[in-house]
Amino acid sequence: MKIIELKETITASNDRDAEVLRGELKEKGTLLINLMASPGAGKTTLLERTIRDMKDEMRIAVMEADVDSDVDAVRIEKLGARAVQAHTDGMCHMDAGMTRRALEGLGDEQFDLVVLENVGNLICPAEFDTGAGKCVMLLSVPEGDDKPLKYPLMFSVSDVLIITKTDVAPYFDFDFDKCIERARKLNPDIRIFAVSAKTGDGFAAWEDWLRCAVANWKHEPSIIQE
Amino acid sequence: MKIIELKETITASNDRDAEVLRGELKEKGTLLINLMASPGAGKTTLLERTIRDMKDEMRIAVMEADVDSDVDAVRIEKLGARAVQAHTDGMCHMDAGMTRRALEGLGDEQFDLVVLENVGNLICPAEFDTGAGKCVMLLSVPEGDDKPLKYPLMFSVSDVLIITKTDVAPYFDFDFDKCIERARKLNPDIRIFAVSAKTGDGFAAWEDWLRCAVANWKHEPSIIQE
Repeated sequence: MKIIELKETITASNDRDAEVLRGELKEKGTLLINLMASPGAGKTTLLERTIRDMKDEMRIAVMEADVDSDVDAVRIEKLGARAVQAHTDGMCHMDAGMTRRALEGLGDEQFDLVVLENVGNLICPAEFDTGAGKCVMLLSVPEGDDKPLKYPLMFSVSDVLIITKTDVAPYFDFDFDKCIERARKLNPDIRIFAVSAKTGDGFAAWEDWLRCAVANWKHEPSIIQE
Repeated sequence: MKIIELKETITASNDRDAEVLRGELKEKGTLLINLMASPGAGKTTLLERTIRDMKDEMRIAVMEADVDSDVDAVRIEKLGARAVQAHTDGMCHMDAGMTRRALEGLGDEQFDLVVLENVGNLICPAEFDTGAGKCVMLLSVPEGDDKPLKYPLMFSVSDVLIITKTDVAPYFDFDFDKCIERARKLNPDIRIFAVSAKTGDGFAAWEDWLRCAVANWKHEPSIIQE
């Protein structure tokens, strides 16, 4: 498994770099998903189950971004999926240049879906366009239903919100209706799923969305105007 | 309740500013604690129980730092403690200058203990000295025992690690021994407590530590050399 050491690129040009990267990935028919959440919200666990369910129908790779360690990439590789571990040199987020370098770590192989598991952080990653086609965020039940009030940007920039760890809902005061209402107030178009990676509840709906997103990405007209 | 809008100060001078602020607080006999954790790790809930238990023996104030909202400060004020809400203007951490401004929001009243509840984030707050006398971090059981591997700086700079939400341990695969071993490898001197704010388990030990820390802060020789 590859470990890539990254440094932040110049942020002024980040939006442009992200747009260019998104165009190149569109050209190749590769959907890049930027997966964001707090530490411990269940990003890797969600990916493990998703890869197990879907690896026979599409070519999937994962880029694990962390300040340190390679435990997550090791977990993904155990499933037989391609994984690279990117170290962010202490940085709290990934930008488009860092994402490009991590993608290069995957080599020349073609993928239908590449997931960037961003650094565990509900603030900074929301501020940087990585070039991803879709942004997906997780919020775990133990974190609480007030998070849209406190971390509004993350909820605003995400295409999808997945509420995770629903199996432990009986042990926490998590109001699903309130959480959804708060998220939709910030982002009326956000798609919301509620899942448990332990029981598998809710995975069918999330995986249907993912299947459609990958298919649409290949077949929608190019987003870059020549 | 006061809401203070903050902007980041120039970081080059942050270490010096933090040292000066720490000296001033020492002079006044006020212990400032920088409380750090991921979003939803239970910072406010820990403070609620701690304030309820200890407000009759010392003068306590809380500074809530958030990107947005004032829900936490409202919760603290309900207990009859002084609270100010600081908005970080999108920033993912507090620095010494921001902390000084938040302290000014508490007015001229004297406090034995001021807790800065930092922005929910396991990365950036660890990089900035706020001028606090002690750094306390929380890690909640649902986040997982691998967090010291992935967010090493936070564990390295903290004087105390409080493992929270121990009441839900039966529903999660959290290995306390492994977590403690990983934290101590980064920081052999770190004091570790395990608590449940729901049941009160572990609070006596944490509150004993806090009581001693406040007393020692008043009576230890000044840390600033004249």
